[in-house]
Amino acid sequence: MRHEKHLAPREANFRPLTPLDFLERSVSVYPDRPAVIWHDQRSSYREFGDLVGRFAAMLRRKGISRGDTVSIMAPNRPEMLAAHYAAPMVGAVLNTINNRLDADTVNYILKHSESRILIVDPSCADVARQATAGLNVALVHLDDGAGSGEAESFGALTGDETPDPITSSAVADEWQPICLNYTSGTTGRPKGVVYHHRGAHLNALGNVLSLGLTTSSVYLWTLPMFHCNGWCHTWAVTAAGGTHVCLDKVEPSPIFRAIETHGVTHLSCAPVVLYMLLNHPDRSLRDPARRVLLATGGASPTSALIRQLDVLGFDLVHLYGLTESFGPATLCALRDDWELTSDEDKAHVLARQGVRHITANRVRVVDQQGNEVPRDGATVGEIVLQGNTLMAGYYGDVTATETAFSGGGFHTGDLAVCHPDGYIEIKDRSKDIIISGGENISSLEVESVLHQHPAVLLAAVVAVPDEKWGETPCAVIELKDGMTATPEELTAFCRARLAGFKVPRRFVFEPIPKTATGKVQKFQLRAELRASNRS
Amino acid sequence: MRHEKHLAPREANFRPLTPLDFLERSVSVYPDRPAVIWHDQRSSYREFGDLVGRFAAMLRRKGISRGDTVSIMAPNRPEMLAAHYAAPMVGAVLNTINNRLDADTVNYILKHSESRILIVDPSCADVARQATAGLNVALVHLDDGAGSGEAESFGALTGDETPDPITSSAVADEWQPICLNYTSGTTGRPKGVVYHHRGAHLNALGNVLSLGLTTSSVYLWTLPMFHCNGWCHTWAVTAAGGTHVCLDKVEPSPIFRAIETHGVTHLSCAPVVLYMLLNHPDRSLRDPARRVLLATGGASPTSALIRQLDVLGFDLVHLYGLTESFGPATLCALRDDWELTSDEDKAHVLARQGVRHITANRVRVVDQQGNEVPRDGATVGEIVLQGNTLMAGYYGDVTATETAFSGGGFHTGDLAVCHPDGYIEIKDRSKDIIISGGENISSLEVESVLHQHPAVLLAAVVAVPDEKWGETPCAVIELKDGMTATPEELTAFCRARLAGFKVPRRFVFEPIPKTATGKVQKFQLRAELRASNRS
Repeated sequence: MRHEKHLAPREANFRPLTPLDFLERSVSVYPDRPAVIWHDQRSSYREFGDLVGRFAAMLRRKGISRGDTVSIMAPNRPEMLAAHYAAPMVGAVLNTINNRLDADTVNYILKHSESRILIVDPSCADVARQATAGLNVALVHLDDGAGSGEAESFGALTGDETPDPITSSAVADEWQPICLNYTSGTTGRPKGVVYHHRGAHLNALGNVLSLGLTTSSVYLWTLPMFHCNGWCHTWAVTAAGGTHVCLDKVEPSPIFRAIETHGVTHLSCAPVVLYMLLNHPDRSLRDPARRVLLATGGASPTSALIRQLDVLGFDLVHLYGLTESFGPATLCALRDDWELTSDEDKAHVLARQGVRHITANRVRVVDQQGNEVPRDGATVGEIVLQGNTLMAGYYGDVTATETAFSGGGFHTGDLAVCHPDGYIEIKDRSKDIIISGGENISSLEVESVLHQHPAVLLAAVVAVPDEKWGETPCAVIELKDGMTATPEELTAFCRARLAGFKVPRRFVFEPIPKTATGKVQKFQLRAELRASNRS
Repeated sequence: MRHEKHLAPREANFRPLTPLDFLERSVSVYPDRPAVIWHDQRSSYREFGDLVGRFAAMLRRKGISRGDTVSIMAPNRPEMLAAHYAAPMVGAVLNTINNRLDADTVNYILKHSESRILIVDPSCADVARQATAGLNVALVHLDDGAGSGEAESFGALTGDETPDPITSSAVADEWQPICLNYTSGTTGRPKGVVYHHRGAHLNALGNVLSLGLTTSSVYLWTLPMFHCNGWCHTWAVTAAGGTHVCLDKVEPSPIFRAIETHGVTHLSCAPVVLYMLLNHPDRSLRDPARRVLLATGGASPTSALIRQLDVLGFDLVHLYGLTESFGPATLCALRDDWELTSDEDKAHVLARQGVRHITANRVRVVDQQGNEVPRDGATVGEIVLQGNTLMAGYYGDVTATETAFSGGGFHTGDLAVCHPDGYIEIKDRSKDIIISGGENISSLEVESVLHQHPAVLLAAVVAVPDEKWGETPCAVIELKDGMTATPEELTAFCRARLAGFKVPRRFVFEPIPKTATGKVQKFQLRAELRASNRS
């Protein structure tokens, strides 16, 4: 074929990929379907579109325009969801801030992101005031949402404003930034991860496809929206025309009540939330005959966990991803062509991080030379991602960006094997490897064994310095309510299931420090243990 | 936010959107799942990947490379499906040719598309030989597929070739052409519609989402793959990891048998095929308890049709699109929030072309000034499409391209209204409007009435010249087997249901000329009627 100039892309056949398009469509196609439920408020897509339109008009009135950063600190409430559309609708970049961060870190993020405005929920108002002291950042306060009428609960966003129409006209380029997400900071100062419209659109579609979201889906917001924009479900549920159920308190009682009251079909949460659910008396509210798809990530589900969740009516999907990959990049769900009878077998395969989403392009496990490791389920390599659902880079950090992308892929720092069927399974985060007497110990492996002990609620295994061995594993344990276990018992339990050198030399019974998203903060744990060693 | 150079797209985070990625993923993730069934052959995704790899190796060996056109004339068989991946895998452009075309038209297409190679099924061999006479086009013959073993049935594609690995590395740019589809030619010489990788990828995802395709889906190929690449289902079913069931003969018996034997979940076909199904004794094979999603397009389903399909276990989805829009752009399915009790009510809403796909960007009904008509279900305008699932343009035809895209959208030539809920409904193709005594008559409206008559199998209404009125409607009728109807009866039937000026002045009982895809060829009908008037 000859090259012909009239076949070049033009306005009619090339439009930037953006998640704004999903809202535009759902407002147009499903105006009367339920879009958002929060407390006693129910908004249709038409009403939610109006909230977004008023939010956008408010931003415009405050002088926010293309390329400006809009920060927000709020729990999962309709305005938080609306921010995911209103900010990009005026061409701005949304910066959702973890609402449990301290004022110093929030101040750092506001300065680093060059935020022009900070929208805050009452629960974050004090921190916000301290964090913005001396900064040229406009503060916009949301009301407490406990007002009796719907109008009041939209607080600063009601006013007399005429809603802007939902449009993607401010998106000139699909590579334009849509969000700036600061990594939750397990080490050092947080880095600003830049999301583009193209990736947000595609990862949202990937979620719709992998979780099977439809107009009938009712998604419960237990996962914070500030965490990777809720793994892009903020856009995915809207794309499907489903219903968002906002939950601002992640506690077992409201979770169980919301599931039954609103007919929830899907939810996502950190493993720590799962253990909370299983150990709460309100589990009796659950009607196990109505199955709910539960997506989790971060820790391998044990057979006991899977069995108990199954009894409670939850079907588990194991997701894997990072802030840098817009959340989920791979998933592992039980397949009808797998013949698995025992819970142990199911746990065995669900422990894997699985295979890539339809819209995630490439997941490889590579050795230090960048070559793929054999698919033998044994050779460990680093997970390297490639594709359209990866960040543009770290804002203001050339070095970190180039390091992460060295060799043409994104280096996750996660160590994994690849099974013969192409499923990957994480063995450890590179920095969580414990090297004892020259042998590598996977802290994950030791934790998995400890999680099988009936008295253990949560276990975190870290390296502590050792004169003889270099490092030895130390286990920090949270026990279940009313249960007991001694170091001797746990040592024996591990010894029966692990190579000797992998058995923790020390057991500490105390609360484990976690990030707001339930991720164990190992760097803090190590610091605490070092301090207690010295004292 | 500042603009930062290190945030520009790079190999790691920007990969061309291409449907090749779907095959790469399904071969990797679902190697042992069934990919293609044809006669007694069953291929897993691994095996289908090998077929594609051998096909690509064959093309490379014949010197085919980036930008070359690869033509194929074949019914729905595995090699036809494989061509949709093998040609783009070597960077070539696939040109599927309607296998019922005459040698002269095929010769025109081969020359116009600058084809270097033509792959032919035995059923098209004679036409292919005539069409390539004197042209520098390599002919590759497929075997008849009736061989006893699987190896034989792949014919010219077996050999000793090592299959190329499935890769999208030949796709340098997502705007690169992937297919060249000649419109089936209801008027004049066919035009070459250029598809790009980006649009093929996105429309395939749109199909997966709108039809709910999953790994459990079994798609029956009644729609010819040469027709808009089977509406992009050639790529969509693979993206979902579902199973393609190839059917090279579109006849009721094999359709009913395939549905029950292979557990078909989805099929698409032209309305003419639906009428064939309903009037065939093998309908007794159908197990109506197992529902099958049936997508159709082109004519409004009547209440009688919907009721009969429902009894047969088919749930109807009405799609609308054109070759220029990669097939489906809008769809209309019954929704659970519509309270429709009678078949008439269902037919009433299913007659609409509906609303846009998730990946189709904009469907508007506009007046002659390009402004949207009111959503009143009454004001007629032209359907104009905009978005990523529109062709690059017509190959070698600047004028036609610029005309179609004038005003920044693609002009479909279809006249429609927009209902208050945003659903569009076609009233007529611009060129099918009959203007009688200054009044517009929609041929579609008259046909819809005639389709309600119990004896009518198919009706086509066209304009015939009239001295007094300018034009009057003439109806050409195909009756059901064993049924009768007189012009007087049909006139009375129409008169009871239509304004007087819309009632056909003449009824002709004869076979209606159709394209290979079941589209009524009105231009030919008009020509025939003019000829018979003169004689």
